[in-house]
Amino acid sequence: MKVHIIGIGLIGGSFALGIRKAFPDVEITGIDTNKENLELAKKLSLIDIFGTLEGVTSAEVVIVAVPVDVAPAVVTKVLDLVGNNSLVFDAGSTKAHLCEALADHPKRRNFLAAHPIAGTEFSGPKAAMADLFSQKTNIICEVEKTSFKLQEKGLEIFQKLGMRIRYMDPKAHDRHIAYVSHLSHISSFMLGKTVLEKEKNERDIFDLAGSGFASTVRLAKSSPAMWAPIFQQNKENVLETLNEYIANLSEFKNLIENDDFQEVFSEMERANHIKTILKGID
Amino acid sequence: MKVHIIGIGLIGGSFALGIRKAFPDVEITGIDTNKENLELAKKLSLIDIFGTLEGVTSAEVVIVAVPVDVAPAVVTKVLDLVGNNSLVFDAGSTKAHLCEALADHPKRRNFLAAHPIAGTEFSGPKAAMADLFSQKTNIICEVEKTSFKLQEKGLEIFQKLGMRIRYMDPKAHDRHIAYVSHLSHISSFMLGKTVLEKEKNERDIFDLAGSGFASTVRLAKSSPAMWAPIFQQNKENVLETLNEYIANLSEFKNLIENDDFQEVFSEMERANHIKTILKGID
Repeated sequence: MKVHIIGIGLIGGSFALGIRKAFPDVEITGIDTNKENLELAKKLSLIDIFGTLEGVTSAEVVIVAVPVDVAPAVVTKVLDLVGNNSLVFDAGSTKAHLCEALADHPKRRNFLAAHPIAGTEFSGPKAAMADLFSQKTNIICEVEKTSFKLQEKGLEIFQKLGMRIRYMDPKAHDRHIAYVSHLSHISSFMLGKTVLEKEKNERDIFDLAGSGFASTVRLAKSSPAMWAPIFQQNKENVLETLNEYIANLSEFKNLIENDDFQEVFSEMERANHIKTILKGID
Repeated sequence: MKVHIIGIGLIGGSFALGIRKAFPDVEITGIDTNKENLELAKKLSLIDIFGTLEGVTSAEVVIVAVPVDVAPAVVTKVLDLVGNNSLVFDAGSTKAHLCEALADHPKRRNFLAAHPIAGTEFSGPKAAMADLFSQKTNIICEVEKTSFKLQEKGLEIFQKLGMRIRYMDPKAHDRHIAYVSHLSHISSFMLGKTVLEKEKNERDIFDLAGSGFASTVRLAKSSPAMWAPIFQQNKENVLETLNEYIANLSEFKNLIENDDFQEVFSEMERANHIKTILKGID
């Protein structure tokens, strides 16, 4: 199997490692605008060959793992070039804009819109892991727009990497993911900012911070180059979640201000319900 | 060594396990208002004997690990009862109110105000772990108010449990800890609330939530009985952190609303600095 991966960072690199493990005969070609990362990817044996965007004509599978703002143009270009039997899939955190941009492409049936819910706060080829996608959910959007044969090929790859599949409408995907992913990142980035602003003496933060703080602020280490375009593309949904989050925080603040600690208790008790829901994913 | 532990939950229970490992000859007496937890603590061999508050007269060391709203009364009562050579220490997340309440107690020199920065989102004796305090920071307040001999005894215990010690003024403690602990809990509780309110279909949350969300919302599983009194006692500092956090979130929201994604990027890049600071604690 000949696989071309465009964007050989955490996600593209983890696909490389996972696919190589599952399909030992694979030949992986890497493409990246960042030459340093590309060379590192070869040094780390993520990829076998340096490729070019134009070179995707020879690929059986093309994986596009680039920031969501450039994904529509890159996938369009790739679809323009690939053969009729090639599968192209992406891994972006927003789906509506991309699906819309590709809706009328003559090779739309070669494309599978995917979002593997997997990642870490690190980025670049060094952060890649062969089992990143194991036991993770992969959301597929508009599956009916992909040809049967290529759906099958995609599912085979996802299955061998240990993913479970969920099918969703792109707009529903973007709305839901704003709550369970995009908002978490903003809450974490702003928590990091608030503490950094206050605690000028860094030694003090380090000494007083426990695992609870580390856990809550972990996502503030994430890549701005990846996240700024996500917030831009999912602007409406992200603003809605942010408004609700800020309203809930303000309400909680008012309860404390008014010494209504019975209700402070009840609010937390209700939020405790998240326990039952998250069982098994952390 | 005879140790009495008042409050045999996550913290008290972890002291029991840790101390038993470090001092094999210890005899541990447990006291708790929750009879079920007390019996469970004996069943789990956290404690050897059921005790009473009045029985602390025979203790060499008394550990008070109760919610911060009842701590001042409990520690006062314990100090009233203990012998001149007994060490009493607490483990509460707020220090100013407790230190003030005990300032004029005739046995103030028997008391050591401590806050081990350790815990998990779970509670009760089942959640106790022998190594909970290993490599964790223990903040000691007003150390000069404790007798030399009992400082030494406390430090011996903390050292054997693997803690590193930091000395702080109680007010500075409460101010700093509001940022690196109390605010994280509120941000997490409210994140949990926001998502729960929105996602009525629980299956969807489970499927779409990745490890990032789980990490950010982890603290929303924490015990309301422990946290409501903490927010109450540290009200002024907590309100200050909340105001700053809400202001930062609102500012970030405005940047998105105004399509200033260059500044959204820069904000996240600055928050990335948390990486270097947290190195080693998560």
